[in-house]
Amino acid sequence: MSEADQSAFARVRESFIRQGLMQHWGAKIGLVKVGHAEFLLPKSDKVTQQQGSIHGGAIGALGDIACGYAAMTVAPDGMEVTTVEYKVNMLAAPTGDALLAVGLVKRAGRTLAVCHAEMFDVKDGHRKLCGLMQATMMFIQKKY
Amino acid sequence: MSEADQSAFARVRESFIRQGLMQHWGAKIGLVKVGHAEFLLPKSDKVTQQQGSIHGGAIGALGDIACGYAAMTVAPDGMEVTTVEYKVNMLAAPTGDALLAVGLVKRAGRTLAVCHAEMFDVKDGHRKLCGLMQATMMFIQKKY
Amino acid sequence: MSEADQSAFARVRESFIRQGLMQHWGAKIGLVKVGHAEFLLPKSDKVTQQQGSIHGGAIGALGDIACGYAAMTVAPDGMEVTTVEYKVNMLAAPTGDALLAVGLVKRAGRTLAVCHAEMFDVKDGHRKLCGLMQATMMFIQKKY
Amino acid sequence: MSEADQSAFARVRESFIRQGLMQHWGAKIGLVKVGHAEFLLPKSDKVTQQQGSIHGGAIGALGDIACGYAAMTVAPDGMEVTTVEYKVNMLAAPTGDALLAVGLVKRAGRTLAVCHAEMFDVKDGHRKLCGLMQATMMFIQKKY
Repeated sequence: MSEADQSAFARVRESFIRQGLMQHWGAKIGLVKVGHAEFLLPKSDKVTQQQGSIHGGAIGALGDIACGYAAMTVAPDGMEVTTVEYKVNMLAAPTGDALLAVGLVKRAGRTLAVCHAEMFDVKDGHRKLCGLMQATMMFIQKKY
Repeated sequence: MSEADQSAFARVRESFIRQGLMQHWGAKIGLVKVGHAEFLLPKSDKVTQQQGSIHGGAIGALGDIACGYAAMTVAPDGMEVTTVEYKVNMLAAPTGDALLAVGLVKRAGRTLAVCHAEMFDVKDGHRKLCGLMQATMMFIQKKY
Repeated sequence: MSEADQSAFARVRESFIRQGLMQHWGAKIGLVKVGHAEFLLPKSDKVTQQQGSIHGGAIGALGDIACGYAAMTVAPDGMEVTTVEYKVNMLAAPTGDALLAVGLVKRAGRTLAVCHAEMFDVKDGHRKLCGLMQATMMFIQKKY
Repeated sequence: MSEADQSAFARVRESFIRQGLMQHWGAKIGLVKVGHAEFLLPKSDKVTQQQGSIHGGAIGALGDIACGYAAMTVAPDGMEVTTVEYKVNMLAAPTGDALLAVGLVKRAGRTLAVCHAEMFDVKDGHRKLCGLMQATMMFIQKKY
């Protein structure tokens, strides 16, 4: 891993572990490199909807952080990222043991970054696309 | 409250209490009537992001259920609702004690319903708009 | 009409008449006041899709300018507006003589404005909701 | 080209040439194969905005047909496609001679198809990403 990628990972990790939502869910940070961030959400009764699948709200939330942290890896020094908006399509109800979100930066300007994320249903070691996100992130002053 | 509205409330409540995610968060059902559904999410460290505000993912998730359950109040008998997609804009980071989502059906056909939700930051009894959602819901066979 | 509203109208009109797309279509400026902008698109074979209705792309485009020009009415002096993103739901295929788009600013900050638009199918003097938009606009330096 | 791809092209072309909007703009059909559809929009004063670039509404409209016709290539026989919703991010104002939209089906079910499109600014033979779309299409009975 390059120095830039190691630094990107450290930067994302420092912010990610401060997220109460993700800590309570037991979400885990995965591969992070410049312009790319992955997160894994293990299935538990903390994230289900009425039919026992992982909740669409949790799919959206995991996609949101995959997009946001992908953007953070390309943010200017001393800047944090805030979500302007995201849009998520559900492709299939996940039936597996975990949800994997892979976020990518498609374009970053001075103020905004446009990101794309794919969410996968992970079952017995296989992954199947179950959600798609397109999101806009904004760089803001870091406050902590 | 009309009989139709009472029946809408009962139908939504039966499904809502089965949602592990919403139970884990301590979310509460509010006013539900035909074409309209409200939910309240108390702030806790189960729903925060890295700067201590309510997470954008939680704002999206609460909007998702407000839209979905508004759609359920107009769904044909024996049908449930599944999320096709939702899009949420963040207007301001919530700083209050709770988040309120108000979902409305804008148009329902045989297969799809288009919904709109407003999310409010609730602080000292006042509410301030902090999120906007536009979503597409689909009616599907109820399985439980 | 207040002076602020008259000034908003003049500002929007100056930009609108420069849009080749809207001139080609014969679109007309309607009521414009602070935070609000309306446009009318007469039906012609310049805007139809394969089944003879007004094209979804034209519904999106008219919503885009309704949101963008609503944002322009609240933009700082000397600033123009550019579209960050928009999302449009089609509620029914328009069957009337014209399409009316009504754009509103839901919140404006220093950099971004979040807007909402409703598109109506206008037929024999009646209007019926046929499209819904949620959009993000950015203020940028005016270049002309 | 396989027989399936040739048939996909013929099916899309039959519908595309009926679109008054696209004919008036002089848009051209490009590569079409199963799950994939491309369209080219030459720049002219029929598609510009107030600063002389191709209008965001035209970028959205071209993405809409790229997604819709990609979906048509996988639609059941005798079915047409209608747009449920689309969401488009603008990445950069196009400055070239034409706009190219490439639409892909990400998942198709019995009723809905989720599609993705990339829009490129084409200048002196080079292409640069300028727009991203995520869209939901619905299969409906063909009426012509």
